[in-house]
Amino acid sequence: MMRTEQKRNLTMLCDFYELTMGSGYFQTGLQDRITYFDVFFRDVPDRGGFAVCAGLEQLIDYIQNLHFGEEDLDYLRSRNLFSEDFLDYLRRFRFTGDIWAIPEGTPIFPQEPVLTVRAPAIEAQLIETFVLLTINHQSLIATKANRIVRAAQGRTVLEFGSRRAQGTDGAISGARAAYIGGCAGTACTISDQLFGVPAGGTMAHAWVQMFDTQYEAFESYCRLYPHNATLLVDTYNTLKSGVPDAIRAFDAVLKPLGIRQCGIRLDSGDIAYLTRKARKMLDDAGWTECRISASNSLDEYIIRDLLIQGAEVDLFGVGERMITASSQPVFGGVYKLVAVEDGDGTVHPKIKVSENVAKITNPHYKKVYRIFDRATGKAEADYITVWDEPVDSGQPLELFDPQSTWKRKTYTDFIIKPLQEPIFRNGELVYRRPSLQEIQAYCREQVDTLWDEVKRFENPHTYYVDLSQRLWDIKQALLRESK
Amino acid sequence: MMRTEQKRNLTMLCDFYELTMGSGYFQTGLQDRITYFDVFFRDVPDRGGFAVCAGLEQLIDYIQNLHFGEEDLDYLRSRNLFSEDFLDYLRRFRFTGDIWAIPEGTPIFPQEPVLTVRAPAIEAQLIETFVLLTINHQSLIATKANRIVRAAQGRTVLEFGSRRAQGTDGAISGARAAYIGGCAGTACTISDQLFGVPAGGTMAHAWVQMFDTQYEAFESYCRLYPHNATLLVDTYNTLKSGVPDAIRAFDAVLKPLGIRQCGIRLDSGDIAYLTRKARKMLDDAGWTECRISASNSLDEYIIRDLLIQGAEVDLFGVGERMITASSQPVFGGVYKLVAVEDGDGTVHPKIKVSENVAKITNPHYKKVYRIFDRATGKAEADYITVWDEPVDSGQPLELFDPQSTWKRKTYTDFIIKPLQEPIFRNGELVYRRPSLQEIQAYCREQVDTLWDEVKRFENPHTYYVDLSQRLWDIKQALLRESK
Repeated sequence: MMRTEQKRNLTMLCDFYELTMGSGYFQTGLQDRITYFDVFFRDVPDRGGFAVCAGLEQLIDYIQNLHFGEEDLDYLRSRNLFSEDFLDYLRRFRFTGDIWAIPEGTPIFPQEPVLTVRAPAIEAQLIETFVLLTINHQSLIATKANRIVRAAQGRTVLEFGSRRAQGTDGAISGARAAYIGGCAGTACTISDQLFGVPAGGTMAHAWVQMFDTQYEAFESYCRLYPHNATLLVDTYNTLKSGVPDAIRAFDAVLKPLGIRQCGIRLDSGDIAYLTRKARKMLDDAGWTECRISASNSLDEYIIRDLLIQGAEVDLFGVGERMITASSQPVFGGVYKLVAVEDGDGTVHPKIKVSENVAKITNPHYKKVYRIFDRATGKAEADYITVWDEPVDSGQPLELFDPQSTWKRKTYTDFIIKPLQEPIFRNGELVYRRPSLQEIQAYCREQVDTLWDEVKRFENPHTYYVDLSQRLWDIKQALLRESK
Repeated sequence: MMRTEQKRNLTMLCDFYELTMGSGYFQTGLQDRITYFDVFFRDVPDRGGFAVCAGLEQLIDYIQNLHFGEEDLDYLRSRNLFSEDFLDYLRRFRFTGDIWAIPEGTPIFPQEPVLTVRAPAIEAQLIETFVLLTINHQSLIATKANRIVRAAQGRTVLEFGSRRAQGTDGAISGARAAYIGGCAGTACTISDQLFGVPAGGTMAHAWVQMFDTQYEAFESYCRLYPHNATLLVDTYNTLKSGVPDAIRAFDAVLKPLGIRQCGIRLDSGDIAYLTRKARKMLDDAGWTECRISASNSLDEYIIRDLLIQGAEVDLFGVGERMITASSQPVFGGVYKLVAVEDGDGTVHPKIKVSENVAKITNPHYKKVYRIFDRATGKAEADYITVWDEPVDSGQPLELFDPQSTWKRKTYTDFIIKPLQEPIFRNGELVYRRPSLQEIQAYCREQVDTLWDEVKRFENPHTYYVDLSQRLWDIKQALLRESK
């Protein structure tokens, strides 16, 4: 058996039913029927007002590497379910379709198509698992990180959670997503090497324990890294020995070098109380530029409360609660068939009905737009149309709530922007990949276009995601038809 | 920049402070000092009575592949923190130490050493992140899966969660851990290919939507896979059209072939009500061997309640709540320095003190044993000693609670077994890796040695994890010393 680490190609990271269905489409002559699938989600994690989209970069890598190797075909052959014809088809398998997606870092809302795939049935079906996995995972972490970063009100937030992440990729891609959401960096070295997420870190308790005294541990660390000396002060007793020993070490090593920038870190105890006391001790000793880091089971709620209580923290290190989004560790994106093309290229909308109204899909090949108020620059609503509907920002636009259709609002002075961008066209990448730094900056800028009411942690305003009249009519007709 | 998929070696998946400390040990001459680190955890997830240990196999792979490539050294050089001497040391870096671990599939309890590393300081420090990541992740999922499998009372449980997993490895290794915990298989194809976790699956809603009628979709699927026909019956209306169309398709295709085994699957609606009705319809039509699968946001509590309410389910497909352990998505294993050796090989215990009593470590190089009652075969307590203490099952053994030392119990007729096995000795693998099937069987067998009181979901009995008198005395002395 091969080891995970030796496996570069993730084509086989698919649900087995995608292969049985794929073979079924192949045998029934449906494999070339053009299908449209939408990715959308139904609820914002943590009852928040919006999510942050991420994971597209890894989807692009996956699509570009998509192929079945001989060992994959051998495995499939061993299952005795697939014909040699089908295996031969898989040997030549590549993705030849189109993908549109909302760029990473964009605020996204329930029910709108975050990503749309147009491809022959078998291709569109086979990529389902990976599409959902990468978008769900990274959007989950980017969304959580953005909440935590906003709670910190401009203070630095670092991602420290690798050891509690759900698997290696949970740590590696998780640090990337946390950076998109606004973290300044990570403790995870490989995420810096692979993606350029700035990695940093200084010492663990073991460093302090390895020396005969805490002071000796601090002093030698300052000598080794005079420009990067953040000392962990809670191994024995933070206020009685940790901070005093740190000050002694700064005085002995850094002061003669003229270095004023340094740091201490607390990883236990009451952060509000201890950091206020520590701040005073450092200031009294003249170390006013010493930064205080805190890192003990933090999340957006604890950070908010600490700041209300006057905690003197410059930098928050956030671990397990961010890297697993522990308060709600699932982003519920789904992948649903919304249309098929017949032989002459006509697009036929498809719907998935459910007793649960929220689970009824928005049918058809669609476009999604964001409406910004021209005066304030704020995002007002998202607007979903049939793909070929014209939109005209020169005309007043009346939107209505798709459930309570009497709720209406007319926009007059607005800018309207399509949210999805073309990523693949006939299997070819047509998208300029932004750098991770660009994505982070874009995220910050786009979150700034949201009203504060949408950004509240509790009971945020529900942002409007409305359907065009034509799309709404088509949906109602399909619902009636299905009865 | 390299892509994640092209990166085979996970040496750089470390917290950056492991490198700054490593360089510090190197420069202060501490790099060869022999250190002992324990992995232990403090709380069982979901307030359960025990956890299931997993993730060792991936740790073995990691240790065997551990090395810094030139591109890794280039990256580290670019950080301007490390000397060429240290980079040269890293170029030759291999793991040369010893590792002992409790085998995968074993029930484990808070405060006991699940894994122990004995190695030069720099080596022991550098592997910290990966050791914790793999043990924490897979133990989390194996523990959750075991709860869910026990709730199903002998019915089949399959892992269906890839699309909601936290990253690719969350899906791939997660399916492996779920299998150890007792799942019969997975939907994740690559986990079968890599690890031999049986993968299966039949159809999604899209298959039904692709055909003009539901009946046509069912009939063609039965023709394609007559021996593997599980039909998804909830795309439109489960009882009015889904089950009747399935019965028609079975009658038309399977009956003439003499096939009596088939299945239906429900992915929405009230499982208790719908499966009872569906069972009656299938039985009345003569399809008594048709198995019913259910798969809608399930976990151990919902499965328990469904069975209490008489749900007729033969097979549970469990997705996001198992693959992310969503009710408590973090396994809190830590990695703590417990001893150092001086030049002549004498082992000196080390302790980490904390205001929080539960956070005080058990110092020293230790051994951990499990005591089984000879008559019942049941596990009675775990017993932690200093590494060189003799244990003798021929003598009565008095154990006492390390917090409430007046709570005492004497065992007379018992079997005592060491829990940790040697994995690496001087950097060489000395462990015969069991197959995944053996691990699953071992887990089932070992969970059977626990009393039902320990296996309750709510308020389980707290299993005893006690210290020997000698170890307890050493710990008290170190605590007094640290004041």
